Amino acid sequence: MRQDFHDELARVSSSLVTMAKAVREAMRQASAALLAADHTLAQQVTVRDAEIDVLYRVVDDRVFDLIARRQPVADELRVALSALQAAADLERMGDLAAHVARATLRRHPVPAVAPELTVMFRAMSTVADELAGKIVAALADGDAEVAGRLDSDDDAMDQLHSELFKVMLSSEWPLGVEAAVDGALLGRYYERFADHAVNVGHHVMLLVVGKTD
Amino acid sequence: MRQDFHDELARVSSSLVTMAKAVREAMRQASAALLAADHTLAQQVTVRDAEIDVLYRVVDDRVFDLIARRQPVADELRVALSALQAAADLERMGDLAAHVARATLRRHPVPAVAPELTVMFRAMSTVADELAGKIVAALADGDAEVAGRLDSDDDAMDQLHSELFKVMLSSEWPLGVEAAVDGALLGRYYERFADHAVNVGHHVMLLVVGKTD
Repeated sequence: MRQDFHDELARVSSSLVTMAKAVREAMRQASAALLAADHTLAQQVTVRDAEIDVLYRVVDDRVFDLIARRQPVADELRVALSALQAAADLERMGDLAAHVARATLRRHPVPAVAPELTVMFRAMSTVADELAGKIVAALADGDAEVAGRLDSDDDAMDQLHSELFKVMLSSEWPLGVEAAVDGALLGRYYERFADHAVNVGHHVMLLVVGKTD
Repeated sequence: MRQDFHDELARVSSSLVTMAKAVREAMRQASAALLAADHTLAQQVTVRDAEIDVLYRVVDDRVFDLIARRQPVADELRVALSALQAAADLERMGDLAAHVARATLRRHPVPAVAPELTVMFRAMSTVADELAGKIVAALADGDAEVAGRLDSDDDAMDQLHSELFKVMLSSEWPLGVEAAVDGALLGRYYERFADHAVNVGHHVMLLVVGKTD
């Protein structure tokens, strides 16, 4: 990879790190707001989502500019497009954090998570935070190995997601339809967050490997 | 736009038309399978999803090749990247059709849609098909105006989605938790399908306007 291209790509990566940190913080706050039925915190997350969208446009513009001005060769182009795709997945993860926050706002002052599901959602939020943390680390340190390990965290999320449905659909489910519908949608948001995190991991691997060539 | 670039972009658009037609057919079949609890048809949709993924890679490769070989100027690059984003949204729409199909398979021989919700899901599937049909038309005819009108169809989907939740969460909901959870997730798939269709519309507008410059 040419040095000038490499230098500009480093600027793109640095914007991606900022974006990944913002997404991690958004989901962390969204989870805290969800579990504590905290209206103020949930509102902050929805504001933060607009900031993540701005960061997305920054990455998008930088990559566009990089391709338009530097006329990348094939390998460089593949790396630049990976950055674009990573940013798109991160943006979507921010949306999902906002969805979690909006579920909290919708049910407030009643918690959107039924007490029977609190332990499970606490576990899902921990996995989500670990995934987001690994994305930040992989991007910041250029660590392809960390990025590659995201798949196994996603398995943990899928497992929790599947347990969640077993609990809600068992004949012993003590609560009504509304609590189960909330649980189903919230479970889906966490599951999708993890799916996008795995996608980011794949893009980051290419980005990191491309950078060190 | 330069003629050689324009000609190659036409090949990309043609792949997008093929992809959009496949996605429309997938959602049409997924809806038919859902409403009739048709196991065979639902299975066909899941197979079709793999074909849509192949079409996505074709578009992706063609755009990559176009950018790498033709060294596009800024306007051309913006159009090429729009094609890439449109393909990504179409791929996701194919995934959502597969999700609808898998819900049908999971509950078979019981219908995944409760009788109380059939009318509503028939309406949602009609809106989904209209959206997909307009994407095909906009791409095939290079019609930016059709692409721009997708937003209003999405409003119709949002309206249906909101009515669906009102029905399921009313105190008169006669069915259990499982039917409501299925309804909530299926409703979400249709709503997301429509959201992605609107995104495709925005990308197609840029693609079409860029092409006729």
